[in-house]
Amino acid sequence: MNALIRHITLVVKAGNNNARNLARKISTWIDARNVHVHIVENTMDCEVLELGREKPDCVIVLGGDGTMLSVARKINGHGIPLLGVNLGNVGFLTETTPLAWQQTLEDLLANRCTVSSRVVLEYTLYKRGHSEPSCSGKAFNDLVVNRGSLARLITLQVSYGDQCLGCVRADGLIISTPTGSTGYGVSGGGPLVYPDLDVFILTPICPFLNTFAPLVLPFDQTLAIRVEPNNGEVYLTLDGQKGFCLEDGDRVEIGRAKTPIKLIHSAASSYITKLKAKGFIKEYP
Amino acid sequence: MNALIRHITLVVKAGNNNARNLARKISTWIDARNVHVHIVENTMDCEVLELGREKPDCVIVLGGDGTMLSVARKINGHGIPLLGVNLGNVGFLTETTPLAWQQTLEDLLANRCTVSSRVVLEYTLYKRGHSEPSCSGKAFNDLVVNRGSLARLITLQVSYGDQCLGCVRADGLIISTPTGSTGYGVSGGGPLVYPDLDVFILTPICPFLNTFAPLVLPFDQTLAIRVEPNNGEVYLTLDGQKGFCLEDGDRVEIGRAKTPIKLIHSAASSYITKLKAKGFIKEYP
Amino acid sequence: MNALIRHITLVVKAGNNNARNLARKISTWIDARNVHVHIVENTMDCEVLELGREKPDCVIVLGGDGTMLSVARKINGHGIPLLGVNLGNVGFLTETTPLAWQQTLEDLLANRCTVSSRVVLEYTLYKRGHSEPSCSGKAFNDLVVNRGSLARLITLQVSYGDQCLGCVRADGLIISTPTGSTGYGVSGGGPLVYPDLDVFILTPICPFLNTFAPLVLPFDQTLAIRVEPNNGEVYLTLDGQKGFCLEDGDRVEIGRAKTPIKLIHSAASSYITKLKAKGFIKEYP
Amino acid sequence: MNALIRHITLVVKAGNNNARNLARKISTWIDARNVHVHIVENTMDCEVLELGREKPDCVIVLGGDGTMLSVARKINGHGIPLLGVNLGNVGFLTETTPLAWQQTLEDLLANRCTVSSRVVLEYTLYKRGHSEPSCSGKAFNDLVVNRGSLARLITLQVSYGDQCLGCVRADGLIISTPTGSTGYGVSGGGPLVYPDLDVFILTPICPFLNTFAPLVLPFDQTLAIRVEPNNGEVYLTLDGQKGFCLEDGDRVEIGRAKTPIKLIHSAASSYITKLKAKGFIKEYP
Repeated sequence: MNALIRHITLVVKAGNNNARNLARKISTWIDARNVHVHIVENTMDCEVLELGREKPDCVIVLGGDGTMLSVARKINGHGIPLLGVNLGNVGFLTETTPLAWQQTLEDLLANRCTVSSRVVLEYTLYKRGHSEPSCSGKAFNDLVVNRGSLARLITLQVSYGDQCLGCVRADGLIISTPTGSTGYGVSGGGPLVYPDLDVFILTPICPFLNTFAPLVLPFDQTLAIRVEPNNGEVYLTLDGQKGFCLEDGDRVEIGRAKTPIKLIHSAASSYITKLKAKGFIKEYP
Repeated sequence: MNALIRHITLVVKAGNNNARNLARKISTWIDARNVHVHIVENTMDCEVLELGREKPDCVIVLGGDGTMLSVARKINGHGIPLLGVNLGNVGFLTETTPLAWQQTLEDLLANRCTVSSRVVLEYTLYKRGHSEPSCSGKAFNDLVVNRGSLARLITLQVSYGDQCLGCVRADGLIISTPTGSTGYGVSGGGPLVYPDLDVFILTPICPFLNTFAPLVLPFDQTLAIRVEPNNGEVYLTLDGQKGFCLEDGDRVEIGRAKTPIKLIHSAASSYITKLKAKGFIKEYP
Repeated sequence: MNALIRHITLVVKAGNNNARNLARKISTWIDARNVHVHIVENTMDCEVLELGREKPDCVIVLGGDGTMLSVARKINGHGIPLLGVNLGNVGFLTETTPLAWQQTLEDLLANRCTVSSRVVLEYTLYKRGHSEPSCSGKAFNDLVVNRGSLARLITLQVSYGDQCLGCVRADGLIISTPTGSTGYGVSGGGPLVYPDLDVFILTPICPFLNTFAPLVLPFDQTLAIRVEPNNGEVYLTLDGQKGFCLEDGDRVEIGRAKTPIKLIHSAASSYITKLKAKGFIKEYP
Repeated sequence: MNALIRHITLVVKAGNNNARNLARKISTWIDARNVHVHIVENTMDCEVLELGREKPDCVIVLGGDGTMLSVARKINGHGIPLLGVNLGNVGFLTETTPLAWQQTLEDLLANRCTVSSRVVLEYTLYKRGHSEPSCSGKAFNDLVVNRGSLARLITLQVSYGDQCLGCVRADGLIISTPTGSTGYGVSGGGPLVYPDLDVFILTPICPFLNTFAPLVLPFDQTLAIRVEPNNGEVYLTLDGQKGFCLEDGDRVEIGRAKTPIKLIHSAASSYITKLKAKGFIKEYP
């Protein structure tokens, strides 16, 4: 990461006092280094994040993986790199902690950090019988089409480009980015995929009586999922945070968003080290 | 099955014309053999099934596995054996078809059938902070504690007798009877369990970052599942048909119902043959 | 465990100095309590263990799970209960440790221990074209039919009683006791099965293009595995310790051995506690 | 595929009469179209395939996936595209059949075919204590490090670049190309990976008591597998065809071979269609 950093925005999880207090400390520290800094709050309910008049050179998120996902979706398209300070549980997307942020920020301002690009999913929803899209949106970890809380087994037709893969009877389908492969994907039996790869992963959730191994596919073709008739409730969920109801005949098309997310890493950062630190690889005791 | 059959109740899925027409045919056929017969409808919404003043010697269900499960739950406790005529998809619980019922009923009336006993689950719900049960009920296939449609990852504490297994972070937990092991259980990665065995199977649904293989346990101890704090929506579902919302601190205790379900089988019937016929075992092509 | 203990045999892993030294200590301790005690060595190569003229009232094994399995196979049939002192890695079958044996033996001599019965597998091999058995033997954890080191995919025909389950193309098949379900079985995707249950588990190893979930079955019927033509090398392995080559057309019949193994447990012992202590259940961090 | 085809080599499985007869028919058909053609036999035992003085423009393999793999390894480096006529079982790598070859060859000669590039694995073996490589070789489907026929659980240390993933206790490890992901990889629980992707898949075989999901990785770093001390027999197998014994301390380094394999496809060919045709995706019945 070579660009000069003149302006940093700190994003805190709305209503989180720990985040707010830490943001004040970090803000003072940054300010003392003659870098412009301001603090904004991120609200889960609203899909917009106001970054201020002047576009910052980087955004530092104080929160867990949930806040990282939420902010990443909202600022995707601006090309602003993100750095996460973990205030949550797993913190796979974050790069530093409330104890180590000072060293990481020193590295950042001294241009000792690197930036990686991560693919983002973009979906378009076509309501039954309509050729015009009804809405669209993004997901950074995963897009899930799943059954409601009481229903059992929904039937989804899956296509990739002009090839139909057939109908799946399952609890649902997970479409993950490599970033999201350490999330719901791996719980559903999907592989862990190196985060720099330009692919997505299609993993069925508890399929019933059909053979459907997790698939790793390039974005050359568009993936389409159609809700078949006579299902119970079907939901589309984005990063496990936002969601809405789908109806029979609705079709969701999924591809890669134009702009990737940029994540800032300290020089020592490594995917394998993170997999071990967060418990995704556990050695024999 | 040695008892003399003097009275048969035919149960049809409410509102299903195929079932009703077939019931009339079967009713005429039975009547012609001097066995008392009458037809009742089964409604999914209502957990009571009125069998009439005189208790029948056996109940014939015209429907799919769903109707079988529903009827089994409702008449459990009466000790009346059930025979299923498959009008549904998989029909693992049914014994005959709309084409073959005549042969099966001849066998039944000629005492050439056998009866197997299948364990039924019984749960008791204790609302948070209450030592008196709030409600109770039964499941023939499975009892599932699972997340709502949008929430992700719920935390459940599991105990078996006075031993705590710990907390599971997952989409939910399936508690299946051997009968239900060919249902949701096998989709969740659980084993197929011979239906006569007096055990239950505990299978986590998409567990995240914890080790928890499916467990096959005897009914010696009571299984208890407690909803941990700070979950999103949590549901309890019975046989994928009935369900309600659980709240933080609620505790569900699960054991074996006093009376098993009795299922009537034709002499040629075999579990292994059914596994193959219904696609649970598929040979190499 | 109510019987008076007058005579204890200590079995040590042959050539293991730790085991020998500990055996001497334990022997002195037992002798001081006026219980007759003697020490024998267990050799992996030899399937016989000489227990001396007088049958002991219990056998204490100093070694890991491997020595426990080996001794269990050899003394099965005598009905002598076993107590394991763990000198190995996992030690799922052992009950105490080199640090805690004194308390356990005090409990044993004071009749504060319990004894559980565990099923043992017995196999009979019929060479191709022969109706007389060629040999037979036992396994306490599991019996595995698997491919040789270079071969890939063997074809095995599986029957249960007079029902043919069909042909499996896989690396092999694991037939585990409940005791062995925490061994190779769980690695192959099989369930954990409560050790007191009177069942066995059939788990395919890496099946290719066929559907074959792990099966939990009662011993009512005999399981038979036949080696199909045109396989490469096929092996039969007992408890991962003993094994020999099978040929095309060979048939292995598997059932329950007449006598179970008796294991001694301290009063506080619990299956669930062991699953947690040995890492088979790991909570969310 | 635009190049003019002037010379075709037909490769038949040595000793296979069907292959030889079909080769004569195809040879006559090609010859009649003024394209130079000659027939060679492929022997599994020998890792060299003599293509003749003049390098052919394409190689047509008459055999199953096994012969395709064997020929692909041997001619890798020449850059000659391969076309398979399926005489085997699954035939995932082949493009046409003994009934349809004429249409495919017409397409080939009329430049209506396409060519895809598939990555090939290359390994280098370093014997314990040696810094000079002991030998090297290639694999088109997979490279497997696995236990011998009787041994149980080997311990392998895995590194990716300078990052150590830790030790795995398992039956072994599969390193697959995307091409090989439909082979042993998917049997071991690995994902199906689109064949054009420039990645490899690391899948543990029956891991015991450690967490290690299948990993999809780019070739940026070298994968290294070291045999830990005190294992039983350990083998290295290439495409399930060739193999040899490894010893404690031996290290295998795995990367991408310089030249990919080129496979010829008919215009209508599609990966998804093949997955369905060969049974890797099976719809709900």
